[in-house]
Amino acid sequence: GYGRAAIDYQEGRTEEAQIDTRVRFNIDGSTTTDQGVDFGARVRLQYDDGNSNSTTSPGYVYVTSGGLTVSMGNVGTAFDSVGLLYESEVGLISRSYGNTQGSFYAFSTGGYGVENDRMGVAAEYSVGGFTGRLSYVDPDQTAGSPIGSSEEVGISIDYEWNQIQLSAAAVQNGAGIDNNDQYFVGAYYTMPGTSNGIGLNWLDNGPTAFDSQTVVLYGDYEVAPMTTLSAYIANNDAPGNATDNAFGIGAKYDLGGAILAGSIERGYNENIRSDMGIKFNF
Amino acid sequence: GYGRAAIDYQEGRTEEAQIDTRVRFNIDGSTTTDQGVDFGARVRLQYDDGNSNSTTSPGYVYVTSGGLTVSMGNVGTAFDSVGLLYESEVGLISRSYGNTQGSFYAFSTGGYGVENDRMGVAAEYSVGGFTGRLSYVDPDQTAGSPIGSSEEVGISIDYEWNQIQLSAAAVQNGAGIDNNDQYFVGAYYTMPGTSNGIGLNWLDNGPTAFDSQTVVLYGDYEVAPMTTLSAYIANNDAPGNATDNAFGIGAKYDLGGAILAGSIERGYNENIRSDMGIKFNF
Amino acid sequence: GYGRAAIDYQEGRTEEAQIDTRVRFNIDGSTTTDQGVDFGARVRLQYDDGNSNSTTSPGYVYVTSGGLTVSMGNVGTAFDSVGLLYESEVGLISRSYGNTQGSFYAFSTGGYGVENDRMGVAAEYSVGGFTGRLSYVDPDQTAGSPIGSSEEVGISIDYEWNQIQLSAAAVQNGAGIDNNDQYFVGAYYTMPGTSNGIGLNWLDNGPTAFDSQTVVLYGDYEVAPMTTLSAYIANNDAPGNATDNAFGIGAKYDLGGAILAGSIERGYNENIRSDMGIKFNF
Repeated sequence: GYGRAAIDYQEGRTEEAQIDTRVRFNIDGSTTTDQGVDFGARVRLQYDDGNSNSTTSPGYVYVTSGGLTVSMGNVGTAFDSVGLLYESEVGLISRSYGNTQGSFYAFSTGGYGVENDRMGVAAEYSVGGFTGRLSYVDPDQTAGSPIGSSEEVGISIDYEWNQIQLSAAAVQNGAGIDNNDQYFVGAYYTMPGTSNGIGLNWLDNGPTAFDSQTVVLYGDYEVAPMTTLSAYIANNDAPGNATDNAFGIGAKYDLGGAILAGSIERGYNENIRSDMGIKFNF
Repeated sequence: GYGRAAIDYQEGRTEEAQIDTRVRFNIDGSTTTDQGVDFGARVRLQYDDGNSNSTTSPGYVYVTSGGLTVSMGNVGTAFDSVGLLYESEVGLISRSYGNTQGSFYAFSTGGYGVENDRMGVAAEYSVGGFTGRLSYVDPDQTAGSPIGSSEEVGISIDYEWNQIQLSAAAVQNGAGIDNNDQYFVGAYYTMPGTSNGIGLNWLDNGPTAFDSQTVVLYGDYEVAPMTTLSAYIANNDAPGNATDNAFGIGAKYDLGGAILAGSIERGYNENIRSDMGIKFNF
Repeated sequence: GYGRAAIDYQEGRTEEAQIDTRVRFNIDGSTTTDQGVDFGARVRLQYDDGNSNSTTSPGYVYVTSGGLTVSMGNVGTAFDSVGLLYESEVGLISRSYGNTQGSFYAFSTGGYGVENDRMGVAAEYSVGGFTGRLSYVDPDQTAGSPIGSSEEVGISIDYEWNQIQLSAAAVQNGAGIDNNDQYFVGAYYTMPGTSNGIGLNWLDNGPTAFDSQTVVLYGDYEVAPMTTLSAYIANNDAPGNATDNAFGIGAKYDLGGAILAGSIERGYNENIRSDMGIKFNF
């Protein structure tokens, strides 16, 4: 799990400067059979600002053998797990206006709410530089689908080849909403012998986000030992935008066990948001 | 704790085939005094299908010394803890139509609900092949009992002697309901030098289950290394049964750290239920 | 964490004798950077009688370096953390009529309830025998303060010098209530070469407790190895008291890993309360 604490500034809201904290514990159990097959299960206990109590997530169970992992329950989905999808994020809170705006299922930290009979199945296969994922989530496995609702099906692939990473994903009926289909393609190039790189993502955000498309160009550059600058420029064509262009810049300093990070972004509403704080894993 | 995942088929329900998952974490704390007395406490964190979130159980506290354990709080009860009570179960989900149909208190995983002032006390004593248990649960320790409600009192014993195990239990005012008295007697014979055996259970399920009685004959047979077949035939005389006879057969394969198991049963409603899946402890 | 179980007798309530149990797990995560700075986070999982389930507290995040600890989130406050504040407590359940009766924020175990946007920041600095604390809690950091509500600010210090411990604390707008200011001063003298001692506390409980003041004189005496007697006499001038004087006496026996403790107290309502039970840390 991890902990983080930051000052979070957002122009235009009632209290523009607020404190952001998060405490995450992944509670894992696992075992390995005599044949070398791994079985495991996870529940997450997390506190996020705005909640009265920490939340206990629904759980999932998985089996891993020879590169193939199959999981059931509150699974990570193919679309949400694809590489590069969140790669343009900057700052301590890890945000980007280049992120997807569509609705789709993912591992649920806060709980299913009224969808208490949701059930997911996911499979992931890795070999060499290739990873493929399939996922299926039924909003209510105890009943047929009501009008406007359908099972979500997702697929995604990642491929690494020398300095290039390519990722692509598609999801049908995202978040169980009929015809809420979304698509993603991303590419990232790492300069040889460095951790500096540049990436380009394209997203079709689907009907819950006005069928808007997002293109984001982003990069990372190590300006000094332990210190990385990141930046992005994003374009989104949703009808309600004050501007179609957003951008952000962030810096991370590695304390060796914790990071100090901050960012400034300007959104499609022409407002500034900014954060600065610390994050550490345990 | 443990994790499990299975396909669960039940004839006649809206969606006959569903996925069953469960993730259980027992969160334990314990210490041993200089005199060798063990003190401990437990809370359970569990996810079960149909819930929006994992549930955090009420807790209990125990003291163990020289074969005697006394526990207070959300205790395991004498009736629920008796040996052989659930011994006819088959399959991955561990079910049997030969199980008790009565209502009585047990360790509460999902929480007390409106009975938030419930309080239990239990004692267990083991010596040689003998184990005896007593338990007392007050549905509301902060107030007197309303009409129709009473404290539940339970008693049970297990006795092992050579190849024979005998178990018996009784509970008065089960689940805090006046006169909801239930009785259980069971016996199991293990064939010398094997883990094969045969058992017979008798249950009086009490007034919340139409005062029905259940008799179940069951057995286990290791057909191959690591592979055990189990089966039962149960008879229950509740007035609403379509048939008074139910039966089930199951198989378990030990993967060495996990089990693969499945079963087919036919119930008193003449419907089939079946499961197949994996379970692992951690 | 710890577990405890006790018989709790309180004269005049519906069921005078009840069982008290508590199970507490502090779930901690922490890491240390290469520079020797400690980062950590905590969430508490606790079961207390009267609840349907164990509760998961909100969390906090902290950073410690060279005697200074800064924490954010569900923080321990300066007033609640001051030394000696609860030092007159007796018995297994740790209660005293000499305790503060005012309202102020502290680490929340049961959750924020409707104040789900509460946010606290606290700092503690220790050097030699001196410890100083500052805390600030905003009842709702996402909005301005409604009429009658304000941010709570607290300060406290502890100082140890030879056989003397001195503590003092003040809190402004306790529990976010305007003008709910409270004050505390305490002193404790330990007899040289023993763990026997005597203390005196003074409290101004603030307007939510009728602006009453409490003075409590208390002491501890080791009557035999592992066995400590404690006692207090408290005076409080709240208008509704049947008597302004309360007192208590308690005994603790150290089992080496667990304690056996009990107490008898007589309150301002002239009723007796008493407890006896066991408590153990893990």
